[in-house]
Amino acid sequence: MSNPIVLIIGAGDYIGAAIAKRFASGGFTVCMGRRNGDKLAPLVAEIEADGGTAIGYTLDARDEDSVTTVFKQIEDEVGPIETVIYNVGGNVRFPILDTTARVFRKVWEMACFAGFLSGREAARYMVPRGRGNIFFTGASASMRGNSGYAAFSAGKSGLRALAQSLAKELGPKNIHVAHLVIDAGVDTAFVRDRIAQSGHDPDTLPEDTLMNPASVAEAYWTLQHQTRDAWTFELDLRPFGERW
Amino acid sequence: MSNPIVLIIGAGDYIGAAIAKRFASGGFTVCMGRRNGDKLAPLVAEIEADGGTAIGYTLDARDEDSVTTVFKQIEDEVGPIETVIYNVGGNVRFPILDTTARVFRKVWEMACFAGFLSGREAARYMVPRGRGNIFFTGASASMRGNSGYAAFSAGKSGLRALAQSLAKELGPKNIHVAHLVIDAGVDTAFVRDRIAQSGHDPDTLPEDTLMNPASVAEAYWTLQHQTRDAWTFELDLRPFGERW
Amino acid sequence: MSNPIVLIIGAGDYIGAAIAKRFASGGFTVCMGRRNGDKLAPLVAEIEADGGTAIGYTLDARDEDSVTTVFKQIEDEVGPIETVIYNVGGNVRFPILDTTARVFRKVWEMACFAGFLSGREAARYMVPRGRGNIFFTGASASMRGNSGYAAFSAGKSGLRALAQSLAKELGPKNIHVAHLVIDAGVDTAFVRDRIAQSGHDPDTLPEDTLMNPASVAEAYWTLQHQTRDAWTFELDLRPFGERW
Amino acid sequence: MSNPIVLIIGAGDYIGAAIAKRFASGGFTVCMGRRNGDKLAPLVAEIEADGGTAIGYTLDARDEDSVTTVFKQIEDEVGPIETVIYNVGGNVRFPILDTTARVFRKVWEMACFAGFLSGREAARYMVPRGRGNIFFTGASASMRGNSGYAAFSAGKSGLRALAQSLAKELGPKNIHVAHLVIDAGVDTAFVRDRIAQSGHDPDTLPEDTLMNPASVAEAYWTLQHQTRDAWTFELDLRPFGERW
Repeated sequence: MSNPIVLIIGAGDYIGAAIAKRFASGGFTVCMGRRNGDKLAPLVAEIEADGGTAIGYTLDARDEDSVTTVFKQIEDEVGPIETVIYNVGGNVRFPILDTTARVFRKVWEMACFAGFLSGREAARYMVPRGRGNIFFTGASASMRGNSGYAAFSAGKSGLRALAQSLAKELGPKNIHVAHLVIDAGVDTAFVRDRIAQSGHDPDTLPEDTLMNPASVAEAYWTLQHQTRDAWTFELDLRPFGERW
Repeated sequence: MSNPIVLIIGAGDYIGAAIAKRFASGGFTVCMGRRNGDKLAPLVAEIEADGGTAIGYTLDARDEDSVTTVFKQIEDEVGPIETVIYNVGGNVRFPILDTTARVFRKVWEMACFAGFLSGREAARYMVPRGRGNIFFTGASASMRGNSGYAAFSAGKSGLRALAQSLAKELGPKNIHVAHLVIDAGVDTAFVRDRIAQSGHDPDTLPEDTLMNPASVAEAYWTLQHQTRDAWTFELDLRPFGERW
Repeated sequence: MSNPIVLIIGAGDYIGAAIAKRFASGGFTVCMGRRNGDKLAPLVAEIEADGGTAIGYTLDARDEDSVTTVFKQIEDEVGPIETVIYNVGGNVRFPILDTTARVFRKVWEMACFAGFLSGREAARYMVPRGRGNIFFTGASASMRGNSGYAAFSAGKSGLRALAQSLAKELGPKNIHVAHLVIDAGVDTAFVRDRIAQSGHDPDTLPEDTLMNPASVAEAYWTLQHQTRDAWTFELDLRPFGERW
Repeated sequence: MSNPIVLIIGAGDYIGAAIAKRFASGGFTVCMGRRNGDKLAPLVAEIEADGGTAIGYTLDARDEDSVTTVFKQIEDEVGPIETVIYNVGGNVRFPILDTTARVFRKVWEMACFAGFLSGREAARYMVPRGRGNIFFTGASASMRGNSGYAAFSAGKSGLRALAQSLAKELGPKNIHVAHLVIDAGVDTAFVRDRIAQSGHDPDTLPEDTLMNPASVAEAYWTLQHQTRDAWTFELDLRPFGERW
């Protein structure tokens, strides 16, 4: 099998699915991990119907053994992983007094610790090969804390610092590490629900007010193709009308 | 007992001890927590010999029950906590491939999770009273990632985002949250050892090349006395000759 | 004359006057410059009535000859300048299409170019002496651009970069350079007018909602007294209730 | 003439020429401005030999009349400008005491003021049309000051704040403003000379150590094609082996 291989961790949501389709249509063999791998079946089917190649894995990104196992399985059975995209969310909002230790820890495990496990495991295979890409999805909360977002911004800011540390350490080893800051609502059922709950009709929003998951995927596709004389570590994305 | 009360978490090291002495000499009753509270006895004795009041507590800052218990004990037996200073370190340096999941998690628990437990517990008592101060000690790694510092910078950046979230949420409730960025080596046995290991003689360093723990304590003393019309959230500290 | 000498550039407004009084009451001989030096007479009189020493100068901070002349005059006639505080404003708000080249240039001259002239002239005297302090007043606009603030934020961000460059170059020469970020409205007639124009009554604002100029002065007084093993380059100030 | 039109300001150097070729090969009519427009003749000839369309203009970007005139001439004679790329440099290095007022002002005029003139003039034409792109070339000095770079970083930081202000004001008007941070040496005769002067042989540098101007051009080409639901304001570029 000679297609390059991408592993998308957190492939269950809109962004992950869009990335999968973009890389599949670009000729990548797409490996995808999510908590319940069975739920990836429709996406795999859709990609295959379009002539692409995709494989779904059950992967608990917060569990070291699960991460190690899935990486090894792909390397052994599919081939060398060219690119890892870490795309696990964890957005929650709680006043500090309502933030339980369990929530704080779990959000960090999803937003940061699992990113560390994925990034390190990717580095294990990529460093000896002297090539590879490790990309992380960030958010507004990666850049600053905000009232009600202690848990989420602590996790996301940790992920960003991890990504920056990896970029500085692994860049000279020819591994491209990047961090994509999504500074806006992406067009998902979750965001549309939240808009509806705030008393607005998401179906009457002006066009292009929400970010299309396919646009996030396109940004990753661009990062994938940068030449190593000019790598981007960080770029932000937001809709034209967003206030920031 | 009418003295104001400060609780210093992470009081074992040079900075913590300096903060304790500064607040004691300024008239505070100083409560101090560290893993092994017995080790605080000499510091308590020193403060009392100087006419101050200090109490040492055994506190595992990473353990929710321990944090809750010590806060409650102080509030019940000593009085209302005016100021909490979170001063736990966790500086480690490992290439990413040598960073174990255990280390990554433990550094985060010390640098960030324990800061959350302390900050939230402080808020529980301070919000109903409508007053208080919560200060956090940061480092260069709080501001950016660096090669070899994935674990430490992820933890410290998380702490900073937590502090910023608390500042924005609790400021309007009259609680002053601040983050002190120590962008240099502080004059401790640990740092002098590291200098010696790098082949230099720490005793021949030019004067004021290392930061005096007392100067960090003085910065906290200043934050303690700011009027609420002009609170500082963040300030950096570094020696005059430091390259940055 | 053995008192230390501070030179406050931009001494006409509320903040400048407050700094002058704070340093005068702390034993400094206070030299002050503003466009029309005659207007400083009441402030000089007030300081002298309180037992302090103050001298007013006519100084066009944007004019190199004027800056050079006043510095020389003070050094020759009063004594060595210990501290220079650059406190010239220039806050304007214009949509980009209404921002004339003349305004853009003038705002930069006030916010940044004059700061360069003052900072460099201070360095000329301080570097050979191997001591001194150069402090700059910044604003929210120093940290980021905003709609309607192209001119002001370009000027203020330039001043911040200048200050940072000076801090890195002059720190090792024992000259303390710092940048104070005032992230809020200070209690001045100008701000109260603006509040009134927006339909609110500034006299019914909750207490401590606006920053007291004396609190800014106090922050400078603290910077003045930091020991060189632990200098602050930057700190922010904002009222407790400010949204940020 | 139905090709879209790009205006590159500062087209004389390696980056500007590379952008011109990239947009020409992508079907744009390329308008280029530099101080001495005659010097653009070889580049125009090269682009035309490759089947592209290019026009050179004599443009003093620091002169308001010159900017206004060239914009008007292009709009009248060539067509509506779709994209303006501001790519004027100004990198100088001087200790603060050797930085003349003339140099400080001139560097700012090149790095910041001329960017304002170009950006505002672009906005004049684009706002009524409700579409357009305005891109600015930044540098490491845009992000922070450094010893010896007071003039350059003040200018570049001002440009960044201007760009951010324009992005926030003009984004909702469907005009994409972006800022590209080149955090490295680009492969130019100037940089190779500087390397040679530092005692190294630029011809023996490891491959991809210097940034290829074509890679910068490619990044602008990507920005040009982003959909408005996901615009990037800022991205950085650096070679894989760069220390940062």
